Amino acid sequence: MEFSRKGRFVLTLAFVATLVCTGSKAHSQKTVPSDRALIESILSTQQKAWNEGNVEEFMKGYWHSEELTFSGSNGVSRGFEAVRERYHRNYPDRQTMGKLDFSGLEFHFLGKDGALVLGRWHLTREKGDVGGVFSLVFQRFPEGWRIIHDHTSVVAASDSK
Amino acid sequence: MEFSRKGRFVLTLAFVATLVCTGSKAHSQKTVPSDRALIESILSTQQKAWNEGNVEEFMKGYWHSEELTFSGSNGVSRGFEAVRERYHRNYPDRQTMGKLDFSGLEFHFLGKDGALVLGRWHLTREKGDVGGVFSLVFQRFPEGWRIIHDHTSVVAASDSK
Repeated sequence: MEFSRKGRFVLTLAFVATLVCTGSKAHSQKTVPSDRALIESILSTQQKAWNEGNVEEFMKGYWHSEELTFSGSNGVSRGFEAVRERYHRNYPDRQTMGKLDFSGLEFHFLGKDGALVLGRWHLTREKGDVGGVFSLVFQRFPEGWRIIHDHTSVVAASDSK
Repeated sequence: MEFSRKGRFVLTLAFVATLVCTGSKAHSQKTVPSDRALIESILSTQQKAWNEGNVEEFMKGYWHSEELTFSGSNGVSRGFEAVRERYHRNYPDRQTMGKLDFSGLEFHFLGKDGALVLGRWHLTREKGDVGGVFSLVFQRFPEGWRIIHDHTSVVAASDSK
């Protein structure tokens, strides 16, 4: 089988286009799970820190900024220090902190530097379990993805499944 | 005062650069308030619709998708129909709907097509006021900005200020 010079040119072009497209597809397939994996890793580190009673390490998932916000049934806490203070106040000891589990994570990316992450939280405690749902807004910073807003609700046990 | 050819060239370049910079600054200044104004207008339309007892019109601020989510103390409602159904179930008549006020809106844009909007809601009602805080995630679609996720909490009156 022989091809004209023009035919060979078209074939070469098609081959190059295929390489470029395959490459960019592989790249985008690689990028999305990677961002998801980075965020999952932050939440998994938070869960581990909480279960070691380490609120300071847990807080590293949050944006270290006065603009950080945390919303819930007590209104809005503003700033990293206020959010940290809230955790220390509401969970003063290991017994109150219990064993934390995050589950049912759902990701919705907003552009390349933003993400909405929904999920469920559950604290297994001798004094009584508690749990509910959260909505986290993550933003990518030079140092990595950080939670810039957390809206958490307690959900009665029968409704939280 | 006379300028060399080189001097005139530098001056012309500086003048053009000033024009370009001023233009792009004016453009960016115009763009950001405009997105904010578009979102404010959606919320203002929602408030008006609610106060006319028109839940269908109110719902137009939401993404018409099965992926729309609404989180609160009852867990997560999934999909436009479920969210609409939730409003009809929880607010079956004008008396229960009351007079809605949104206030204290705060904007945090995520890229050019995403926005986090925090705010307070209040229902003035004969049967008793109720209110709290909300976190809305907006996404820009070809048809305009729409709420893709709503996390709403009731806040006890003394804490909601």
